[in-house]
Amino acid sequence: MATDQARSEQHEETYEQFEERITRISNVGNAAGILRWDQEVVMPEEGTPARAQQLSALSSISHELLTADETGDLLEELESSDLGDEQRAAVREVRRQYNRETSVPQELVEEISETTANAHPTWKQAKEEDDFEQFAPTLEKLVELKREYAEHIDPDADPYAVLFADYEPYLDLETAERVLERLREELVPLIDAIQDSDVDLATDTFAGEFDDDDQEALARDVLDELGYDWGRGRLDTAPHPFSSGTQFDARVTTRFEEDDLLGSLTSTIHEFGHANYTLGLPDEAYGTPLGDSRDLTVHESQSRLWENHVGRSQPFWAQFLPTVADRFAELEDATPEEAYEAANQVYDDNLIRVEADELTYHLHIVIRFEIERDLISGDLEVEDVPEVWNDKYEEYLGVRPETDAEGCLQDIHWSHGSFGYFPTYSLGSVLAAQLYAAAEDDLGELDDRIEAGEFDDLNGWLRERIHQHGARYTTPDLVEHATGEAYTADYFLDCVKGKYGELYELEEY
Amino acid sequence: MATDQARSEQHEETYEQFEERITRISNVGNAAGILRWDQEVVMPEEGTPARAQQLSALSSISHELLTADETGDLLEELESSDLGDEQRAAVREVRRQYNRETSVPQELVEEISETTANAHPTWKQAKEEDDFEQFAPTLEKLVELKREYAEHIDPDADPYAVLFADYEPYLDLETAERVLERLREELVPLIDAIQDSDVDLATDTFAGEFDDDDQEALARDVLDELGYDWGRGRLDTAPHPFSSGTQFDARVTTRFEEDDLLGSLTSTIHEFGHANYTLGLPDEAYGTPLGDSRDLTVHESQSRLWENHVGRSQPFWAQFLPTVADRFAELEDATPEEAYEAANQVYDDNLIRVEADELTYHLHIVIRFEIERDLISGDLEVEDVPEVWNDKYEEYLGVRPETDAEGCLQDIHWSHGSFGYFPTYSLGSVLAAQLYAAAEDDLGELDDRIEAGEFDDLNGWLRERIHQHGARYTTPDLVEHATGEAYTADYFLDCVKGKYGELYELEEY
Repeated sequence: MATDQARSEQHEETYEQFEERITRISNVGNAAGILRWDQEVVMPEEGTPARAQQLSALSSISHELLTADETGDLLEELESSDLGDEQRAAVREVRRQYNRETSVPQELVEEISETTANAHPTWKQAKEEDDFEQFAPTLEKLVELKREYAEHIDPDADPYAVLFADYEPYLDLETAERVLERLREELVPLIDAIQDSDVDLATDTFAGEFDDDDQEALARDVLDELGYDWGRGRLDTAPHPFSSGTQFDARVTTRFEEDDLLGSLTSTIHEFGHANYTLGLPDEAYGTPLGDSRDLTVHESQSRLWENHVGRSQPFWAQFLPTVADRFAELEDATPEEAYEAANQVYDDNLIRVEADELTYHLHIVIRFEIERDLISGDLEVEDVPEVWNDKYEEYLGVRPETDAEGCLQDIHWSHGSFGYFPTYSLGSVLAAQLYAAAEDDLGELDDRIEAGEFDDLNGWLRERIHQHGARYTTPDLVEHATGEAYTADYFLDCVKGKYGELYELEEY
Repeated sequence: MATDQARSEQHEETYEQFEERITRISNVGNAAGILRWDQEVVMPEEGTPARAQQLSALSSISHELLTADETGDLLEELESSDLGDEQRAAVREVRRQYNRETSVPQELVEEISETTANAHPTWKQAKEEDDFEQFAPTLEKLVELKREYAEHIDPDADPYAVLFADYEPYLDLETAERVLERLREELVPLIDAIQDSDVDLATDTFAGEFDDDDQEALARDVLDELGYDWGRGRLDTAPHPFSSGTQFDARVTTRFEEDDLLGSLTSTIHEFGHANYTLGLPDEAYGTPLGDSRDLTVHESQSRLWENHVGRSQPFWAQFLPTVADRFAELEDATPEEAYEAANQVYDDNLIRVEADELTYHLHIVIRFEIERDLISGDLEVEDVPEVWNDKYEEYLGVRPETDAEGCLQDIHWSHGSFGYFPTYSLGSVLAAQLYAAAEDDLGELDDRIEAGEFDDLNGWLRERIHQHGARYTTPDLVEHATGEAYTADYFLDCVKGKYGELYELEEY
């Protein structure tokens, strides 16, 4: 008994040391997050050289703290201890990160970092000049380096699966592939049917020119409406909208384009979903995995739930359109139904992922996924990317890019060396539908609540089922815990078939 | 010969390691600087708990890097090497910091940090409730802790001199005391004479109510005019204006009060002076003492030079008043002479340091200096501070505070444990006058240049003589280098006697 108690006190002490160490690492990472926000939002343009050095110093310090022998010793000691569930989960998360970071040689990390730093301007210029060949050697180098990186982490695993796990560590690649394949199989005919439909949606509801300042006021309106916590947040503009921060300070950025009121509004709602997740993480677990968000699939489920299931819904437009008309008199005569249709039109000629509608979006993702998976496996050569890209666009979406700038050069991700990131966009949207269905099941009448502008219950449900757990559960366990079911694309497909079947009056849906 | 070369290569390698280490420390410090700017300017109000942890983590990391054995070993090796002047100067600066930080036990650092963290709200409440006794025990504790701190750094030195050296390491305390005593001796009769003068200056030139947005536009005008580099800077508002950053990104903050256009404008010019110094530090030495500013005396000389010698001068108002009138029609009929008089009136009833004019300001400083010096030496007990404070105000300035809130509780500094900071405000103003006189001597016709809105030559002179050297020279050497003379209060006293003698028509001046 005395021995047990002594042992247990020993564990407590070790766990405290562990917590202190990982909290310090988190604090360094969160400081870097503020520096990146600053860089995107407020930094003077010539601040880059110093900022790059500051970020690189913080990243090295964080890496050294994580991969130090002391971290390894603490992990080993805790893994052989009798820990509670929460502590065990925190140890699991840090162990995963520790194993990955200790297995990749520092020189390779630095080479990747240097190559991506140079890749960005190369990609940008290649895109501007519509010249894939300028970017090809860099892309080839990055593919090679990331293969090598994956090999260090797990020489026995499919390298693409290893890379994918950097963004989504717990849904295995088979699951991801199965879901993406199913999306392709079921969405391609749905989109075909839509393109064959004679229905004309009210697509010009939001046509016009809209002043930036008024758009900003409206963005604040919608954040107020959804319940954004301004005491812990703020809204700014950035060229590529993002949200970042911690449960004490989770900020939203958006952008305003004079001729795209709807795009700005949905982007703001999307980023609200991310920030709102962060704000729901438990205060008391700040600095540990229990106070940190689950990975990208879950994060994207939160942004897509608010963007698509709330912000593109009929009851939302019934409720919010008058607020829009208060800011923009030209919308006074628009009906909620017209706004709903405009927010849900499916484009038949769009080549650009970030401008895609809710439905075709996933085929943009499937194409990138198939290409990057084959690049990493070696089944596809870099030089063949443009043609394969264009063929797939023709096959899945019925449009063929005429230039690489609006084809395979459109996205920044590969210049960052981010192979395996794209799938989480679709996996998150799929999860959003599953969560929304479960919330409807539990709470009932979500449509009525949204139409009444009542978001507290929905948000309370998300807080309880998802946010407050931080990274305690793995993704599959979290989904199971939140919905009572395994992760599935059923709800997403039911949802889009129902919605678009009705909108476009498709008999077979 | 071969041995010499091998030794020299060895030195180069050691110096590179040293540079890498201190640059990392700088980068961590500069990251913390951004976090503090963020906290003052843009952070949501509930972000504090996480921000405090982030700043504390960065501060510990920086302390650990600096005081590590590796730093000591590198310093020793370099000190016994044959270094060039610049390298030797960098080593001197780091050695100083290393010695100070390694001599104070970490527990004491933490106790001071904890005590000051709690002292701030205690001071604030005591000030709000005008109750010195609430703050007295904390002040006593801080005096004790800082005495102990000084004892660790140098048990043989005057503890106040040790504390003073945290803010101004190279002008010794005797010099500082001599200058402050002289200011008291010569300014008290000058102020008396002004108070006896029958001259009425045009003091209500800037009376009125001025819109914040227009004030901001005017602040941008004046920064444009002075040549602020917007590519490496920005202007924001903060409750207590400050400037911060590096040569790549040096930001200004200011504040706007509806009824104090002149106060905001001079505050903006003051902070411009600080930021402009930082922007003049050499890019290539970023991260080392050669790319970092000299300490507080020199920094304050830069802000005061622009604030007082430019911004409160006749030619400045001749040049800038039309711009003010463009923003504020109510000033259309004001004359430059009236603006000049308003900017230079001497108050005969002001108790508050931050609202003081250029002249009485220094007596506010002298009083604080005398009191804190005696507190640290033990010649003055904390309980006697309010009475001594009030007596000195009566004696030096002819006004007696009726409350401690507008007396010894007015400033925040002691609650930070910052004993020894105040003198640098006056020492910097004194240096500003010396530098301005030397620039006039070298360039000639500064009045004409200012009246023509030409600031490039003056700024070029400051860049060459002060900014570009970073912390290469000690303060006395830098002054000698820039002006050809030792640090002296002569120019300051000549300058204010001439200016105020003329303004107030004082025969004896």
